[in-house]
Amino acid sequence: MTTHVLRIDCPDEKGLVYKITGVLFHAGYNVISNQEFVDAPTRHFYMRTAFAGRSATDSLVDDLQRVLPPKASVRLTVAAPQPIVVLATKEPHCVGDLLLRHAYGELPAEIRAVVSNYSTLAPLAEKFGIPFHAVPHENRDRRTHEAELIDAIGPYEPEYLVLAKYMRILSPEFVAQYPERIINIHHSFLPAFVGARPYHQAFERGVKIIGATAHIVTDDLDTGPIIAQGVQSVDHSHTAADMAQAGRDIEKIVLAKAVRLVLEERVFLHHNRAIVFE
Amino acid sequence: MTTHVLRIDCPDEKGLVYKITGVLFHAGYNVISNQEFVDAPTRHFYMRTAFAGRSATDSLVDDLQRVLPPKASVRLTVAAPQPIVVLATKEPHCVGDLLLRHAYGELPAEIRAVVSNYSTLAPLAEKFGIPFHAVPHENRDRRTHEAELIDAIGPYEPEYLVLAKYMRILSPEFVAQYPERIINIHHSFLPAFVGARPYHQAFERGVKIIGATAHIVTDDLDTGPIIAQGVQSVDHSHTAADMAQAGRDIEKIVLAKAVRLVLEERVFLHHNRAIVFE
Amino acid sequence: MTTHVLRIDCPDEKGLVYKITGVLFHAGYNVISNQEFVDAPTRHFYMRTAFAGRSATDSLVDDLQRVLPPKASVRLTVAAPQPIVVLATKEPHCVGDLLLRHAYGELPAEIRAVVSNYSTLAPLAEKFGIPFHAVPHENRDRRTHEAELIDAIGPYEPEYLVLAKYMRILSPEFVAQYPERIINIHHSFLPAFVGARPYHQAFERGVKIIGATAHIVTDDLDTGPIIAQGVQSVDHSHTAADMAQAGRDIEKIVLAKAVRLVLEERVFLHHNRAIVFE
Amino acid sequence: MTTHVLRIDCPDEKGLVYKITGVLFHAGYNVISNQEFVDAPTRHFYMRTAFAGRSATDSLVDDLQRVLPPKASVRLTVAAPQPIVVLATKEPHCVGDLLLRHAYGELPAEIRAVVSNYSTLAPLAEKFGIPFHAVPHENRDRRTHEAELIDAIGPYEPEYLVLAKYMRILSPEFVAQYPERIINIHHSFLPAFVGARPYHQAFERGVKIIGATAHIVTDDLDTGPIIAQGVQSVDHSHTAADMAQAGRDIEKIVLAKAVRLVLEERVFLHHNRAIVFE
Repeated sequence: MTTHVLRIDCPDEKGLVYKITGVLFHAGYNVISNQEFVDAPTRHFYMRTAFAGRSATDSLVDDLQRVLPPKASVRLTVAAPQPIVVLATKEPHCVGDLLLRHAYGELPAEIRAVVSNYSTLAPLAEKFGIPFHAVPHENRDRRTHEAELIDAIGPYEPEYLVLAKYMRILSPEFVAQYPERIINIHHSFLPAFVGARPYHQAFERGVKIIGATAHIVTDDLDTGPIIAQGVQSVDHSHTAADMAQAGRDIEKIVLAKAVRLVLEERVFLHHNRAIVFE
Repeated sequence: MTTHVLRIDCPDEKGLVYKITGVLFHAGYNVISNQEFVDAPTRHFYMRTAFAGRSATDSLVDDLQRVLPPKASVRLTVAAPQPIVVLATKEPHCVGDLLLRHAYGELPAEIRAVVSNYSTLAPLAEKFGIPFHAVPHENRDRRTHEAELIDAIGPYEPEYLVLAKYMRILSPEFVAQYPERIINIHHSFLPAFVGARPYHQAFERGVKIIGATAHIVTDDLDTGPIIAQGVQSVDHSHTAADMAQAGRDIEKIVLAKAVRLVLEERVFLHHNRAIVFE
Repeated sequence: MTTHVLRIDCPDEKGLVYKITGVLFHAGYNVISNQEFVDAPTRHFYMRTAFAGRSATDSLVDDLQRVLPPKASVRLTVAAPQPIVVLATKEPHCVGDLLLRHAYGELPAEIRAVVSNYSTLAPLAEKFGIPFHAVPHENRDRRTHEAELIDAIGPYEPEYLVLAKYMRILSPEFVAQYPERIINIHHSFLPAFVGARPYHQAFERGVKIIGATAHIVTDDLDTGPIIAQGVQSVDHSHTAADMAQAGRDIEKIVLAKAVRLVLEERVFLHHNRAIVFE
Repeated sequence: MTTHVLRIDCPDEKGLVYKITGVLFHAGYNVISNQEFVDAPTRHFYMRTAFAGRSATDSLVDDLQRVLPPKASVRLTVAAPQPIVVLATKEPHCVGDLLLRHAYGELPAEIRAVVSNYSTLAPLAEKFGIPFHAVPHENRDRRTHEAELIDAIGPYEPEYLVLAKYMRILSPEFVAQYPERIINIHHSFLPAFVGARPYHQAFERGVKIIGATAHIVTDDLDTGPIIAQGVQSVDHSHTAADMAQAGRDIEKIVLAKAVRLVLEERVFLHHNRAIVFE
């Protein structure tokens, strides 16, 4: 018995759920969970179905394509941990939290390596027995640095990259190597406090709530579709440093949640929105 | 074109979604939204479907019953405001909030009357042009009082009763008149701080978070299936009165949310749990 | 016995709390609560003290000024409801919530009038017996309209103006009439989603949390110091209209909280930040 | 220059803040922050003051005692990381989170050892170079086991014990060894879901919000004064296992917060309530 995850999105039309579930029913599969959503403004249909039975073959996808509109996107995977590479810079809180969860089976991921533009976090990765690569960005241009990053990452064949406080902007060319497959954690709500030292900006502005946003990295926008967000209350007695500490707590929880949602194939992207079946 | 809401629950078996959506597809209906859930421990299936098309007849329910297991529960309604009667005692915050929302079309309900064991809230109901009935509980036993309540409520033929801080316990006999059709707001999380003066108890205990719980009233338990809950942070500087004020803000928001969820036919009850399709 | 609220802010120096409490102690007053804060970056001192005793005279302020630095700001008030005028446009949820709280003693304010650029809300104000003035903005320039607003508001001698979804921008000249005395509720977090149709923007962006911000209106920025903020979770299944409804629930709670904090003299402004002693 | 933390609690009387700040002022100290609170029902006064200057001697405490009521409790400490021992059982999430924060300077604590009734977590402590002691509870009575625990803990001379999911009940005799100096994390709101398998209870009850509570361990109650609480929304689609995972995320954040608050000397206990100066 294998558990599969089927993801379909296509223009909406009458009878889609009936037709899709019909293919699974006639193939003898048992649906475990099923979520659909039609985005009304764009009339686009999304469906995620987990089902169990004998190991599925390509002919199942063919059968599904036959009952779906021509432009349908169909993705069929087996439910299993997916390989990832984690990118970071110097801050340990998100990397450390992912490594801990990974070590104790709390993440549907296999962390194959940690890659950083500094060597600061090497001891942390080593504690958990995960390969670490320092790929310094200094004294080389962006193109060269990114080529070196890709050389370091490539052999691990990750399904997703997770930016766990990786503090450098990635070029569209880099992102194009992992299209819709890079997850980032942003230090704040989006859109809000763009640029450097966001917690200083939040402090100066006297905000009463701070937050963190996990999103997919796209090349046409500095921030892509939002996967998960979290918040925490603060007040005037919080210094910028206190806000940053509170921010770190939210960042690590929100990033771990987003990694789980994406790796469990619960996220669909549509333009700049994410449909998330929690 | 009519919008219908179909609710089905039954023991789970293979192909249910396929069979149900097949009946709707062949009858020419357009599914607007569809939510299913299978409770794994009990292997019970729940489905809520909104669909549009010509006005449905009983034969549609017959067609559905034919493809469903023998014990299936099927409920088909037209999406429309449902008639309710609001019961209260002396506190105005929940009743006032419901009356305001009702007056401005924010509630999928038609409030036909406010009934109370005191006359305190009569001026509030009158402001909004809603009939008010004082049915005092003093100098009569519970059975007599509840018979008088039912006399006051009955002519309004409510689909649901909403207890908006009605501070008296209802007998199983009364509840049996409106089975699974009474919504209550409770002053706290459940289970927690049972009995009188809950915010004084919360204060004595030094809690850091207070909450409110909206639930369906059942006769075998003082508190039934939970529909919605909300919270707010407090600290040692909040007196019991401050906590009660914070509590009122949560109570009115949570009750209004629960009323909307129930009246839009989004809630299924299973033993002491509620399945809520938000 | 009168309860007084004393607010002091001045450049920080050694011994301020000692000197201030000394004046109150020697004058025979009993301190009920005391909150201080020193903003480290600017070395500025803030203190709010509630104290009880015989009715205080100007000589107490003189005594305080004698022990404080030359530039100290001292404000001494008697704890009592303060007169306000509420400005609104067409939406009823914030005005209605304030009127309900006012009617039942939940607000430390005396609402003297509701003023709007439309007549939509006249029946709502009338339900609660509060004077209503429609001051239409059509067919006149901003200067003329604001002069008419001030004519309508002036006779009520409000201590504060509360913008309860007043959807027009106020000129610096208008704001200067009520410096640091106008409270506004903003439809979102700040900074975020500026401009029209914020919930459509939030929907397009696929946010997972929406919020509301209450702030003081200043003339040099479209949004001034933040008093209170609130949030609520949403997901892809929320339409822009659903988000707006969720937003209304937060807006009314956050605005009522901000009005209470400001009117209880718990808010100090410093540049674009608010120090809020909750 | 040393930073000190002064904590005073005593029956309230007129002029306490004046007298206390007077002693510090005349001794030449600079107050950095100052928080007071008078619990109205019990008329008890609490004050926490951080101040800087030359290293304080016992004569400062004598000077303070002279101006305070006879029964005043005065505690003067230097602001510095305090030694702790962490107790755990088998679950890694809270211990791991504390070890990570400790390794990166996010905790005002020096973790001297991890002690457990199993050896499961030995590799985790070793990763971070922290001594680990397995003190099995099997095949011995509670008194013997607790004596062995105290033997293991004692040499580390901890100021506080932190129970990071230590799943055994401690006897009053054990607690008396560390009076008001044991911090625990509880799997749920209090009071709620006492006994085994709390997340199964929460699931059965269909709760919509789960939480965690950090508290001081006292011997007269199974749960003592509450230091911090946190919450997270769940719904019917969360299995008991999902709720437990969500619970773990809250537990580790809330426990870390409570440890920081207690070790920074921000918590006063009064009967079964905690006054927490955040």
